[in-house]
Amino acid sequence: MTLLILRRGGGRNWSEALARAAPDLAFRVWPDTGPVAAIDSALVWNPPPGELKRLPNLKVIISMGAGVDHLLGDPALPPEVPIVRLVDPTLAEPMAESALLAVLRFHRQAFEYARLQAERRWEALPMTRTRDLTVGVLGLGAIGGDVAAKFLHLGFPVRGWSRTRRSLSGIQCFAGSEELLPFLAGCRVLVCVLPLTAETRDLLNARTLGALPRGAYFVNIARGALVVEEDLLALLDSGHLAGAALDVFHAEPLPETSRFWSLPNVVVTPHIAAITDAEACVHQVVDAVRRVRSGSPLFNLVERARGY
Amino acid sequence: MTLLILRRGGGRNWSEALARAAPDLAFRVWPDTGPVAAIDSALVWNPPPGELKRLPNLKVIISMGAGVDHLLGDPALPPEVPIVRLVDPTLAEPMAESALLAVLRFHRQAFEYARLQAERRWEALPMTRTRDLTVGVLGLGAIGGDVAAKFLHLGFPVRGWSRTRRSLSGIQCFAGSEELLPFLAGCRVLVCVLPLTAETRDLLNARTLGALPRGAYFVNIARGALVVEEDLLALLDSGHLAGAALDVFHAEPLPETSRFWSLPNVVVTPHIAAITDAEACVHQVVDAVRRVRSGSPLFNLVERARGY
Repeated sequence: MTLLILRRGGGRNWSEALARAAPDLAFRVWPDTGPVAAIDSALVWNPPPGELKRLPNLKVIISMGAGVDHLLGDPALPPEVPIVRLVDPTLAEPMAESALLAVLRFHRQAFEYARLQAERRWEALPMTRTRDLTVGVLGLGAIGGDVAAKFLHLGFPVRGWSRTRRSLSGIQCFAGSEELLPFLAGCRVLVCVLPLTAETRDLLNARTLGALPRGAYFVNIARGALVVEEDLLALLDSGHLAGAALDVFHAEPLPETSRFWSLPNVVVTPHIAAITDAEACVHQVVDAVRRVRSGSPLFNLVERARGY
Repeated sequence: MTLLILRRGGGRNWSEALARAAPDLAFRVWPDTGPVAAIDSALVWNPPPGELKRLPNLKVIISMGAGVDHLLGDPALPPEVPIVRLVDPTLAEPMAESALLAVLRFHRQAFEYARLQAERRWEALPMTRTRDLTVGVLGLGAIGGDVAAKFLHLGFPVRGWSRTRRSLSGIQCFAGSEELLPFLAGCRVLVCVLPLTAETRDLLNARTLGALPRGAYFVNIARGALVVEEDLLALLDSGHLAGAALDVFHAEPLPETSRFWSLPNVVVTPHIAAITDAEACVHQVVDAVRRVRSGSPLFNLVERARGY
């Protein structure tokens, strides 16, 4: 029985981590599948649609990242095979860093000071106090909860929103669609870390982003398809939003012709907020493969209907 | 008896905070001193040399900020008058933010990604893991201790150096001049929050900054005179230092002709890492004035010989 590593863009760090963590575990790296009947498990990122259907004896699909939208978008995804997602204990760290960096640049006026530096002007700007800058975190799972706690630790007032109600110490928690607009109305900064599901697709649009107070800042380190991009552009153009830091887009790579590249108040990064660390997660892969072979229950199963 | 607010650059937020906190406390705002014999206390920032000497009945000098180098540089400073420094409980917060912003920009390659954005290039760069980026904090007092703890909380390995030995949980502590070079040799990033004293003036020079590993990043949010600026420029030019974020300089405002303004790997800000918050500290001012009038002992006294 063989594990297949199926990742568009190469899977070298995974092969190395697997060979070190479980030298006895046979694996192959797509597209070099060998006899497909031997493959019982697949470690997958962004597979070509239909590719997993070619594996007749597949017993488990392991998603390389926390999000599984890259899998669920495949109409030919084998319907009965359980999907396990990796829970990277180190993934929250770079996500929180990306959020902090984006928010601190806005809060501490890094863009204005860069312009003043270019003009050789020594000029202190009026400053918003940290306790007056409410940060809203959209999504309060493992990553969102950590992001929210880190802003709180730095002295920011923090509020959060999730689909189902959470209770997090020191954080004003909102839940469900009826509390989304009241949540947004109090955010000077909105940090989005939601999973992409049928329910959250296009969630951030003219109505919801427009519910943010004028001058708010928007940070998206989750998925591009959560946002109606034309609506976001219109709100940036009108000045309703002061700016945005965008790590994810509908089309990735972001097309060279996109207006986002050149807006002066938008930071574009190439989907680098966090990358799942093979070393930190390889034991979860090995464990899932062994469990499926011995008929033991699997952990971190994805509910397909829910989308995560 | 009257308190004098003596601040070059205006002291408006202090007058308002004082009037609110202690409506019965008489004060005047320099240069409108009134009869100088009535002044028994002075709340001071960056006074013109010789100005405090003109006050014959001065019983206490209260420094508006944590540092007192702005006072001790006055050769005519009345030698017997006690100096109280304000300990702003909210000052550590913006200082830590400034340090975090500077370090995260370096760590997460904000400058490289800004260049890629300008060229409309979608290209993920190899990333240093947080656990591999050791942050060194120079100065472990109230501010440095908080800065160090916040980096630690985000997952960075942290080491610190102070004149006298400190013990801080989770932080590798170095002390004294003999441990300075070993401390520096292990810093990928150096954050300076030292007070400026006779001992620390010019502490950061070709020898000490040169002891940082090649490719290190330097953050100065303390005082410009801690640094030999020509040495820093040479290390930036040679590439020994990858870059610097500088909030303080020998001459402030930084002269328009300074090379620091235009170096591509240097961030210049106009001494805005943190500003003492009048509201948060006004009660310490009122308390010091009342204590000196009633003959009670003063808190947070500055040791002039030590310099802080």
